[in-house]
Amino acid sequence: MNALAKVPGSVGVVAPGDMQFDDPLLLKSGAVIPSYSLRYETYGTLNADRSNAVLVCHALNASHHVAGTYAHDPKDVGWWDNLIGPGKPIDTDRFFVVGVNNLGGCHGSTGPATINPATGRPWGADFPVVTVDDWVAAQARLADRLGIRRFAAVVGGSLGAMQALQWTIAFPDRVRHALVIAAAPKLSAQNIAFNEVARQAITTDPDFHGGDYYAHGVVPRRGLRLARMLGHITYLSDDAMAEKFGRALRQGEFKFGFDVEFEIESYLRYQGDKFSTYFDANTYLRITKALDYFDPALACGGRLAEALKGAVARFLVVSFTSDWRFSPARSREIVKALLDTGKDVSYAEIDAPHGHDAFLMDDPRYHGLIRAFLADADTDRSAQP
Amino acid sequence: MNALAKVPGSVGVVAPGDMQFDDPLLLKSGAVIPSYSLRYETYGTLNADRSNAVLVCHALNASHHVAGTYAHDPKDVGWWDNLIGPGKPIDTDRFFVVGVNNLGGCHGSTGPATINPATGRPWGADFPVVTVDDWVAAQARLADRLGIRRFAAVVGGSLGAMQALQWTIAFPDRVRHALVIAAAPKLSAQNIAFNEVARQAITTDPDFHGGDYYAHGVVPRRGLRLARMLGHITYLSDDAMAEKFGRALRQGEFKFGFDVEFEIESYLRYQGDKFSTYFDANTYLRITKALDYFDPALACGGRLAEALKGAVARFLVVSFTSDWRFSPARSREIVKALLDTGKDVSYAEIDAPHGHDAFLMDDPRYHGLIRAFLADADTDRSAQP
Repeated sequence: MNALAKVPGSVGVVAPGDMQFDDPLLLKSGAVIPSYSLRYETYGTLNADRSNAVLVCHALNASHHVAGTYAHDPKDVGWWDNLIGPGKPIDTDRFFVVGVNNLGGCHGSTGPATINPATGRPWGADFPVVTVDDWVAAQARLADRLGIRRFAAVVGGSLGAMQALQWTIAFPDRVRHALVIAAAPKLSAQNIAFNEVARQAITTDPDFHGGDYYAHGVVPRRGLRLARMLGHITYLSDDAMAEKFGRALRQGEFKFGFDVEFEIESYLRYQGDKFSTYFDANTYLRITKALDYFDPALACGGRLAEALKGAVARFLVVSFTSDWRFSPARSREIVKALLDTGKDVSYAEIDAPHGHDAFLMDDPRYHGLIRAFLADADTDRSAQP
Repeated sequence: MNALAKVPGSVGVVAPGDMQFDDPLLLKSGAVIPSYSLRYETYGTLNADRSNAVLVCHALNASHHVAGTYAHDPKDVGWWDNLIGPGKPIDTDRFFVVGVNNLGGCHGSTGPATINPATGRPWGADFPVVTVDDWVAAQARLADRLGIRRFAAVVGGSLGAMQALQWTIAFPDRVRHALVIAAAPKLSAQNIAFNEVARQAITTDPDFHGGDYYAHGVVPRRGLRLARMLGHITYLSDDAMAEKFGRALRQGEFKFGFDVEFEIESYLRYQGDKFSTYFDANTYLRITKALDYFDPALACGGRLAEALKGAVARFLVVSFTSDWRFSPARSREIVKALLDTGKDVSYAEIDAPHGHDAFLMDDPRYHGLIRAFLADADTDRSAQP
């Protein structure tokens, strides 16, 4: 069959695996996780010289389930399924793709809701703060165990992009291509401010119980719901919201009360309600902190180029015009730092109306760019025989 | 003394008054307020032909206390004191300035915390939803009682500007100058979304008790605090936050915990805490609804020019470049509608870094503009002798 004639498809039914690590992991905070487990999925086949592995790093509300579906739940499609699969821009006929739920997560990897072997109770408030650096360190150990010395590519959007960037700093010789999408080199005060409101919503919920709500048989659902509603505002552009909802009324006329009047209210309440039924509040808190703390230039006196000078990857940096959470200007900071230190970097600013969430959309220019960037990426020309 | 030599000063110690209204007020929602009281302040002297009155309309977190201080609390300076006083742009040596706490407020006018004469208990949840139209109707009755047939000017910023605009529509022959500052002709979906998150924070606070928290001896402080924190993010520009706080740390280094790390967190918590001690949650809910409902073009099939065609005032519209809550584009919608229907309108876009809050700042270009616009406003050339 001619490869060009293939219809891009799904990786099909997938199943996650769990990898147990019994070597203690020293975290950036100084805390130690004595042992932990990471949940992951893989799609495609690792080639003979192990040069075709692609790591996909997830952002706030995502997981190891990047592509395909589950046998028990065919509707549970991976969060980046439009990008990854046979014939898709990250082509699983060519690449061996790895998705992993980060340490501290709530989708199967060890996190605050996991039983702490030392106490026999959920970690809860005792689960340490984890950082992007820690996630990358844990991902590197997973790569070791999967026999992946060097990734053909590390890919991420938003917080996932921060992990891709950190890979090129912490393990420069283990990344041949870094795809840094809808990123920022560090959060702005406004970014931190939104995170802080979300955290305060959770920690001041009476059902939070200082983070040990598991023992009380409750979850801080009100706080999680507010955090998610607020998050959604920052993921969408003003224009996208105007386009999608505008001032459309739920019942066609003003009711002058506190029930839903506008469609946007209904949408936000729905999103908040749904999220609060499945996401762990302690994980949410820690992921927002990981975002706040990310600042690779800090150790280099604020000089990002200095922080990136050891990187050897080829970089693709992509931003979206309507993204006001991490605007194109933030991506250009990364591009400038890479250029200042002589790196191989391609940059594209995609004219897209969807805001920050554009990185998850199926835009042909954006996806075409990734496809082209990875055209030769499954062969490691520098690899030892 | 030569007027030009005067140093702009304060109106000094002021005292509010209360005006009781026993004529029922039919609200836009169809509800009726049988009787109510409005708290107000005045500065300067109403001239013989009553042509020098200026009404100042307040936004979300403000009141009738527009200028001057109180004898019992000299630090309680009026919220627009930098604009209003002897020799200031709204010169109380020339103008008779009126500030009024809106109906439904919590600074002395009848509102949800007021005792409902029909029950002997606070209005609470039974206090109706009030709109910008209702506020303007109530302000007009206050003007009647103060003997003001026609205002030299009606002035407001943000939600206050919406009231100024509504004055020119509801009572066109009672406004000679309208100052519409940092306004929008209606909220966007994103604006409504932020309001909805704030409302949900309040109404899902367990201490809200469906709005009848007064009887329980509590207030939904957690929710109010979150609402205020979120509000503050939208009042400041990203740049202003970066300038003021950046990523400055409270204690100089990361602590990897959930106490305050960044100065911006400390600022927001402080603002939220302070606000939650004095502002009434039911008032907050109603003010955000008044914002959501404001849409003078709605009754004219969305044609704002049509809604404004009866206005006879001279208009000054001012926006601020860094205002992302109500961006300059929103003010230009108003200007375009006014021009389309042949009104006398001046428009200025002030290059200011402070975001939405710029309308409260003492910017010489901005204040100079108001001063110039009002140069002849204390004389009503069309007035009957």
